Amino acid sequence: MTVSARDARPEAAVAAARTLTRCRDLVRPALAAAVERLHPWPGEMAAFSLGWCEVGGRPTEGGVEGKGVRQALAVLCAEGAGAPGEQALDGAVAVELVHTFSLLHDDIMDGDGMRRQRATVWKAYGTGPAVLAGDALLALAVQILAGTPGPHAAAAVGRLSGTLTGLVRGQAEDLLFAARPWTGPDAVRPGEYRAMAELKTGTLLGCAAALGGLLGGAPPRTVSALDRAGRHLGVAFQAVDDLLGIWGDPAVTGKPVHSDLRQRKKTYPVLAALAGSGRHARELAALLDAPLPLDDAGAVRATALVEACGGRTATLEEARHHLDAARTCLRGVPLAPRAACEIEGLLAFLLHREV
Amino acid sequence: MTVSARDARPEAAVAAARTLTRCRDLVRPALAAAVERLHPWPGEMAAFSLGWCEVGGRPTEGGVEGKGVRQALAVLCAEGAGAPGEQALDGAVAVELVHTFSLLHDDIMDGDGMRRQRATVWKAYGTGPAVLAGDALLALAVQILAGTPGPHAAAAVGRLSGTLTGLVRGQAEDLLFAARPWTGPDAVRPGEYRAMAELKTGTLLGCAAALGGLLGGAPPRTVSALDRAGRHLGVAFQAVDDLLGIWGDPAVTGKPVHSDLRQRKKTYPVLAALAGSGRHARELAALLDAPLPLDDAGAVRATALVEACGGRTATLEEARHHLDAARTCLRGVPLAPRAACEIEGLLAFLLHREV
Repeated sequence: MTVSARDARPEAAVAAARTLTRCRDLVRPALAAAVERLHPWPGEMAAFSLGWCEVGGRPTEGGVEGKGVRQALAVLCAEGAGAPGEQALDGAVAVELVHTFSLLHDDIMDGDGMRRQRATVWKAYGTGPAVLAGDALLALAVQILAGTPGPHAAAAVGRLSGTLTGLVRGQAEDLLFAARPWTGPDAVRPGEYRAMAELKTGTLLGCAAALGGLLGGAPPRTVSALDRAGRHLGVAFQAVDDLLGIWGDPAVTGKPVHSDLRQRKKTYPVLAALAGSGRHARELAALLDAPLPLDDAGAVRATALVEACGGRTATLEEARHHLDAARTCLRGVPLAPRAACEIEGLLAFLLHREV
Repeated sequence: MTVSARDARPEAAVAAARTLTRCRDLVRPALAAAVERLHPWPGEMAAFSLGWCEVGGRPTEGGVEGKGVRQALAVLCAEGAGAPGEQALDGAVAVELVHTFSLLHDDIMDGDGMRRQRATVWKAYGTGPAVLAGDALLALAVQILAGTPGPHAAAAVGRLSGTLTGLVRGQAEDLLFAARPWTGPDAVRPGEYRAMAELKTGTLLGCAAALGGLLGGAPPRTVSALDRAGRHLGVAFQAVDDLLGIWGDPAVTGKPVHSDLRQRKKTYPVLAALAGSGRHARELAALLDAPLPLDDAGAVRATALVEACGGRTATLEEARHHLDAARTCLRGVPLAPRAACEIEGLLAFLLHREV
């Protein structure tokens, strides 16, 4: 197996896209009703961030929405537990709200002005309002889950709150990585990066899957396995993102070629490459340490060096390993076959992006 | 009764201060343990905001801490329910963490660079890190309450999440008030201001009291009454703050004389004054509408006009009315006499500040 769209059968991609659409259509009314509960001002910012409206509130025409992976995982895992997907709606809404919260606040912290080919919320509405809107989304997510009917509200909120503290911890680590050196004893080790990715990306995917299972009535062992599967998915997802950030096609990613290297982002391929001690690793470290920005030639050379040091191979291996681990988690517990098949199809689709 | 320290008997003030100290000492180890659970970076910002350390982590010498009203209310209301105050510790910690979160994020939104005679967190650490620290505090508050032992975790988190959405809604209104005109159909009416104050200040005080009652085992009717008492306290508290913001002694408030008028803040005394239609109200509106900043003479004149229009009297009346309403709520339910006495003493002390 390789992590590449070249190996993904077109019909599998169509099936995965159909799964995402089905789940998005199922969750949308509840998500829209949740956003309606917000004060109109943060409500508009939330709708803008979700790709539903322009600044001022006019509905978008053909706006770019997220894939909705988190809501889909929640729905599919409830179905995996033998329940109708509707039973996971509060969980699905909560994880999408938390995801939107984290995009809003992370974009402020990272200073990112563009997301999905449009301005980020802080860029469009101002920093203070974007802080407010993120807070509103976070509070609403907790409120919706705390009010979910049935016996699982307390356990669900417990999971969500653990996820929130994990998310924040991962974001703290990610911000601190930027200030650390490329080499020497204080350099970021690939294992630290993996732990950060699990917190920053994996906890919420794990929470989405676990909440789906929990609200669908799955036994605790299954809920734990779903959580672990989601965490592995998060690490694999981050690895693929890192590959796309260096070797991705600008026409697909919407970013310049070698984007992450030009920005000198500490990503897995670079950290894995620098963990070696050969000539190429030293040349790469010198390039990244140079005071001037990387020009085109520098970015091309750095990319070649990351590859020569095995950074690309190690990252592909990382993605494959965690995708396999996610599958192992899923296959170790009883899940309704059709849902299990859709979940696995989704995992493969998400990780078989063009790298 | 007047709302003035001149009428507060010194022994009552000493007793109230003793109550606050007793509750702070009771809660401190649990609050410190909670802050220890944070990632060290947001953890330091939280400790800085709580007045426990300087930038870099060195413990403060004689730092200025908050009064700890929210934690005290939680402890006292548990005692009012006949339980030891310790039973409310998770609630007390959660409301102090939420209070700290709201200070951190509100200071960003309001652009306030100073609080309690030192730099605010965003000023000392940067905006992005302050957003992160606020998020960390909010997540931790939910996590602590979701994990509180005994049968009340779900109800407690439900209350806290409703409080969070209320807090954010109040902050949204407060920010939007600044952009509205002083007069005409879009002017902020005193009733709107009161509703904002109840959300922004009252909900968390109400939550503190209600969580104390809930965790202390009080019946639902008592918990509701404690919540309502806290909300009234919040409105009264805001009214007194507004009086201090105009007529407070700079030596006590740490702000310039007539501070809120110089900054043209829309506070209750001004809005109540402008709700009239006489000559003085028109002159006040013209002063506040002028494009130039208010100079000393302008601030003195505006202060005199607010007073002449009855703004000060109306605000005193507002504070008294809501303090009385809080007392009525408390007296309508059975509370352990000693705790009830301490709560009432605290209320009177808080509102008998020098105005």
